[in-house]
Amino acid sequence: MKKKLKELAQLINAEIKGDENCEITGIGTLENAKLGDISFLTNIKYKNHLIHTKASAVILEKQAVEFCPTHALIVQNPHLAYAKIAENFIQHPKVTPGIHATAIIGKNCHIDPSVTIGAYVVIGDDVIIGAHTQIDTGCIIGNHCQMGQECHLWAHVTLYYDVKIQDRVIIHSGTVIGGEGLGFANDQGIWYKVPQIGSVLIESDVEIGANNVIDRGAVEDTLIERGVKMGNANVIGHNDHIGAHTIMVGQVGIAGSTKIGKHCMIGGGAGFAGHIEIADGCIFTAKANVPNSIKEKGMYSAGVGIMPTQIWRKNVARFRHLDELAKRVKKLEEKS
Amino acid sequence: MKKKLKELAQLINAEIKGDENCEITGIGTLENAKLGDISFLTNIKYKNHLIHTKASAVILEKQAVEFCPTHALIVQNPHLAYAKIAENFIQHPKVTPGIHATAIIGKNCHIDPSVTIGAYVVIGDDVIIGAHTQIDTGCIIGNHCQMGQECHLWAHVTLYYDVKIQDRVIIHSGTVIGGEGLGFANDQGIWYKVPQIGSVLIESDVEIGANNVIDRGAVEDTLIERGVKMGNANVIGHNDHIGAHTIMVGQVGIAGSTKIGKHCMIGGGAGFAGHIEIADGCIFTAKANVPNSIKEKGMYSAGVGIMPTQIWRKNVARFRHLDELAKRVKKLEEKS
Amino acid sequence: MKKKLKELAQLINAEIKGDENCEITGIGTLENAKLGDISFLTNIKYKNHLIHTKASAVILEKQAVEFCPTHALIVQNPHLAYAKIAENFIQHPKVTPGIHATAIIGKNCHIDPSVTIGAYVVIGDDVIIGAHTQIDTGCIIGNHCQMGQECHLWAHVTLYYDVKIQDRVIIHSGTVIGGEGLGFANDQGIWYKVPQIGSVLIESDVEIGANNVIDRGAVEDTLIERGVKMGNANVIGHNDHIGAHTIMVGQVGIAGSTKIGKHCMIGGGAGFAGHIEIADGCIFTAKANVPNSIKEKGMYSAGVGIMPTQIWRKNVARFRHLDELAKRVKKLEEKS
Repeated sequence: MKKKLKELAQLINAEIKGDENCEITGIGTLENAKLGDISFLTNIKYKNHLIHTKASAVILEKQAVEFCPTHALIVQNPHLAYAKIAENFIQHPKVTPGIHATAIIGKNCHIDPSVTIGAYVVIGDDVIIGAHTQIDTGCIIGNHCQMGQECHLWAHVTLYYDVKIQDRVIIHSGTVIGGEGLGFANDQGIWYKVPQIGSVLIESDVEIGANNVIDRGAVEDTLIERGVKMGNANVIGHNDHIGAHTIMVGQVGIAGSTKIGKHCMIGGGAGFAGHIEIADGCIFTAKANVPNSIKEKGMYSAGVGIMPTQIWRKNVARFRHLDELAKRVKKLEEKS
Repeated sequence: MKKKLKELAQLINAEIKGDENCEITGIGTLENAKLGDISFLTNIKYKNHLIHTKASAVILEKQAVEFCPTHALIVQNPHLAYAKIAENFIQHPKVTPGIHATAIIGKNCHIDPSVTIGAYVVIGDDVIIGAHTQIDTGCIIGNHCQMGQECHLWAHVTLYYDVKIQDRVIIHSGTVIGGEGLGFANDQGIWYKVPQIGSVLIESDVEIGANNVIDRGAVEDTLIERGVKMGNANVIGHNDHIGAHTIMVGQVGIAGSTKIGKHCMIGGGAGFAGHIEIADGCIFTAKANVPNSIKEKGMYSAGVGIMPTQIWRKNVARFRHLDELAKRVKKLEEKS
Repeated sequence: MKKKLKELAQLINAEIKGDENCEITGIGTLENAKLGDISFLTNIKYKNHLIHTKASAVILEKQAVEFCPTHALIVQNPHLAYAKIAENFIQHPKVTPGIHATAIIGKNCHIDPSVTIGAYVVIGDDVIIGAHTQIDTGCIIGNHCQMGQECHLWAHVTLYYDVKIQDRVIIHSGTVIGGEGLGFANDQGIWYKVPQIGSVLIESDVEIGANNVIDRGAVEDTLIERGVKMGNANVIGHNDHIGAHTIMVGQVGIAGSTKIGKHCMIGGGAGFAGHIEIADGCIFTAKANVPNSIKEKGMYSAGVGIMPTQIWRKNVARFRHLDELAKRVKKLEEKS
């Protein structure tokens, strides 16, 4: 694979600084790129790597161009531009449509002939799978599931029954969708199971990482709206509703019946109580713990940051009496 | 499925307010129920939904009846009553006992003829499985495991060797039981593996969600007592002992050799140090971090709540010097 | 299995206190050991269990010997010594090399004849597997993966394509390695997938617990250096670099492009931001949230500890105004 810089510039609508005939043969990070590689800078705060790069060309923003020691492709969104160029340099393995001889398909399924189904996949009854969808080795799909076009389930994905997935949805290994969430009623200290009669609806263009869990709804469906992106090991409770184009990094937990707005960004390990509502466009930093509804768009944080344990111990000891301390200050103010 | 309100009232021992002959044909949430649906209100703080419901009948507590625009079934525990009624409206798929042709069963197993074993299940040697237990597609059960009656392993559950499970235990997909926990001894900076010779005992009526991990004991067994309910993605360390009827929401982590009391309620993402002991009946709010034993029943919390990042940054900066601040207040008090 | 105390002493180079001919037939914890058992004490703070033990012998440090009611093996590192002795008392199940009839192996693989491959394992094309490696039931290994000698993949492990694993690596069930991490570029509110063209390299002597996720690199490989030990349900982001002999307890999350030093110890549920660097030898207590690089070896903590919710609520309310409180103290100081 060999491309001239001007060909790549055309792909991403970039302004060229330097030699438009420079030949690009691969991709590298700023730190480790070698002659012939193209690299990218997404954030000017890493400009130190740019200054010392050995890449033949770099995709960057206008403001970074003065620090670039080599040819450059200038764009507004270098990360996006890089994604489009990288897509050109990778070779996706060829997939041959068809159902592997060891796959087991239930009764009354409608599976498009362009679908690819891997070894040891087990599909229940009354399942519908749309064109060009790919289901990898060892996936298990329950009765009455529906999947749209061009979806990709990586190996070892589990769908319980009645799960509905629209188009171009990608789900990574180990993810479990449609399990019966924590539905229990307490009867004098004993937990009694509450039937979970809803299911899960995943809209188009969602990508879900590895080892996530999305529970089925207690009565109505749990809903993941279009364009949502989830990292790894998130847990979505029953009846949750995740708004379109929201992204969550990983290990996020959302208790049941909570509604997250559209275009939110949720940091790793953040947690949300049940039965709350989060406005569109909220940003939560890592490990934010959200017990209440949030009505205004904004950036929210929790925790006290990291510090040496020795100092931390003393501060935490004071925190235990912070209310008292505040009262003592009040008293001093009254006296003074 | 069609039932008169008085028939449902009988099932749950409810007092009827309104038309006892009202016909119920389905279940809905207060917000989205339609004519013919029965709904329920578990907490009077959501009474706004009750006021506007279009349900034909609602299960509720006595104190909520004045806000109910339609027929009502009055009970002490609406969530529990709802569970019993919902059970009547769902149709569990018929399960035909038998061992799927692709299942592989080891030597010397005792599997009751009423057991159902799905496709591509692999069971080791010397395994015992009790009556009416159901093992779904792709489960893997190691040598010497024992399972009681009426258990249900959903697809893709993994049991290591020697795991013992009593009756009516439900385990959801992706859960791994009996792995070798973090057993390492440090020898001059290098970690040396410590054999984990205990196993796991799960008592009757336990339900374990998806993608949980329960490690085998280092010497004795890890123990999950009867009636425990676990949500998704919890991690239970080696030698832990979870007391009867305790519930944990999800993403809870319990380090090794810790003993949690009976009837505890553990919020999402809470964490417990190893080698500690927690009293019966403790409640921990979400993300509580518990480094020490807790001897008294009560409700416990940690963290500083959520706030706008801008304000949070300033407070956190002050927290770093909280010990110093407290000393300054002390000095002022001495002066005044 | 029966051994004289002096035989065991020899194995671990211990000084014997008591009867060197005492016969040991099993292993027990201090609390539950019975006649014939050997036990161990790793930390003098648990000496209460030692005083009342019924074990026939105990492995311990010199300073604990005065509290020991029975024969003792005195060593510097009792946990390590116990590990070596326990290894002698367990019987590993015999493994017969060979490929199970139901395993599916791709084209052009190089699999050493001493390798053991279990039922329903699926291996892609161009895979290399070294001598004495064991791959258990239901593992799925993608194209172009390489595995060294004496590795052990427990049941239900998933390797994506191109993953490289060196020697003596142990990976537990449900772990997913090589998934495509959270690589998305934002284009006017819509997330656009960035190809992940790196892979994962796991060096020798690494052990990875159950249900972990290690993402493939965006450009270069994600790297787990030799001797790293990971508990359960950790999530390692793309391009992360975990230094040799670091241990992480479980549920740790590390965002992308972060470099953790060698010989670090990371408590359960700790989280690390992306693009940061942690010095060698750092210790993080449970749930530490690390947003910035840490340049000095040391012990670090976050959070405010656990307390009764009633007291906590008052303190948290004050924390929200901590900056203001500090300013009020300053004012008082100026006045006084």
